[in-house]
Amino acid sequence: MKSSITCWALTGIPEVRAGDSLADLILGATRKHPLRAGDILVVKHKIVAKAEGRTVRLDSVTPSARARRWANRWQRDARLAELALREARRVVRMKKGVLITETRHGFVCANSGVDLSNVDGGHTAVLLPVDPDRSARRLHLSLKQRLGVHVPVIIADSFGRPWREGLAEAALGSAGMRVLADYRGRRDPHGYTLHATAEAVADELAALAGLACGKLERAPACIIRGFRYERGSDTARRLLRKRERDLFR
Amino acid sequence: MKSSITCWALTGIPEVRAGDSLADLILGATRKHPLRAGDILVVKHKIVAKAEGRTVRLDSVTPSARARRWANRWQRDARLAELALREARRVVRMKKGVLITETRHGFVCANSGVDLSNVDGGHTAVLLPVDPDRSARRLHLSLKQRLGVHVPVIIADSFGRPWREGLAEAALGSAGMRVLADYRGRRDPHGYTLHATAEAVADELAALAGLACGKLERAPACIIRGFRYERGSDTARRLLRKRERDLFR
Repeated sequence: MKSSITCWALTGIPEVRAGDSLADLILGATRKHPLRAGDILVVKHKIVAKAEGRTVRLDSVTPSARARRWANRWQRDARLAELALREARRVVRMKKGVLITETRHGFVCANSGVDLSNVDGGHTAVLLPVDPDRSARRLHLSLKQRLGVHVPVIIADSFGRPWREGLAEAALGSAGMRVLADYRGRRDPHGYTLHATAEAVADELAALAGLACGKLERAPACIIRGFRYERGSDTARRLLRKRERDLFR
Repeated sequence: MKSSITCWALTGIPEVRAGDSLADLILGATRKHPLRAGDILVVKHKIVAKAEGRTVRLDSVTPSARARRWANRWQRDARLAELALREARRVVRMKKGVLITETRHGFVCANSGVDLSNVDGGHTAVLLPVDPDRSARRLHLSLKQRLGVHVPVIIADSFGRPWREGLAEAALGSAGMRVLADYRGRRDPHGYTLHATAEAVADELAALAGLACGKLERAPACIIRGFRYERGSDTARRLLRKRERDLFR
């Protein structure tokens, strides 16, 4: 067990409201086991969005004709569909009751990442943060200032995947580390040069957060200790494949 | 840190040859820190394939005209392209120098998962195991028999993803646990019913293995301790989206 990766969920974070300081909440939740150099913090996007006021009361939304038609046909909530369309820069697929969009950030996901809040019985929608990389950087810098420790921050959301069932957590935003471990041109223990091998470590760290935080417990963040990341000024935007390299548009 | 997930790579596993017993190798590598109830074993597909003799010497492969044309155009190895085409039941995309296929198992991945062996300087290709779920079940049963402990086994490979850069480790085969944590119809702490939320935990566990095993170290397997999985007779095949539910064919 000479080197291991450990991850635990932060519990006891109260319901987050617009204007709350995430750094305060994280520091409160890590009082017993303080953050150390080498740790990585993963935060679920929902508390970031809530702190930034990215919520919309559904009764304030007037759906367009397109959203109403879609919702009628597939028995969906037209107001949620409307929000998803507003947050999209492009509809990728809109069939079989599933709405896949490319968000303004460039994420390809269901319903533009618009989700119901789990607070008030489903009357409020939570949108994705406006700029998850900026949100991650803010929290990262704030923790550095207050703790004197470099702790990379990843903001995560669960995404569906083409061809595979189930959701997996992925990185929406990142600060303080390289999101891709790039092995290209490096040699493995046999002296064999590794080609075309860049690993999306930020997504794999987000996936670990998915395991640690679960869905039913109120654990909107977790700490990962022991993963040897590379420092860097990367953002999660680097994980978005560019149009010209994409085979699935 | 009341409940945490820990993962460490198994090192010291020698080069695997056809006919080797994976159970022997795993037991050897876990002597110091024996497997316990609650542990999950993740094994990289390459050592499974090698143990099962799923390797092909490249100089024994005669490429078809199609493979040769493709390889010429994109400066690829025609013999590798030939193997990828033979392992495919369908070509999904074949452009920009990237060959994405649906394998006979149903995985959608680059080059049908055919990879160069890192042993002999690139003269041998490693194919995917014929039936990774069966391989996982065998190893799972063998460990149960010899240790008297229930240890789920996941066989993992790194896959590219549409729209996102970098590879992420995913589950090819699985035995001894449910691969999807299905929250549908269950209630979160606010009493809010979770809809359409099934989490691909086997893929997230594979992703953690990707972090722990890395690419440059010779660590073809890892142990995950502390993740509360659900026992079940699931296989990784459940993670393959059925044609009628797929929006991207």
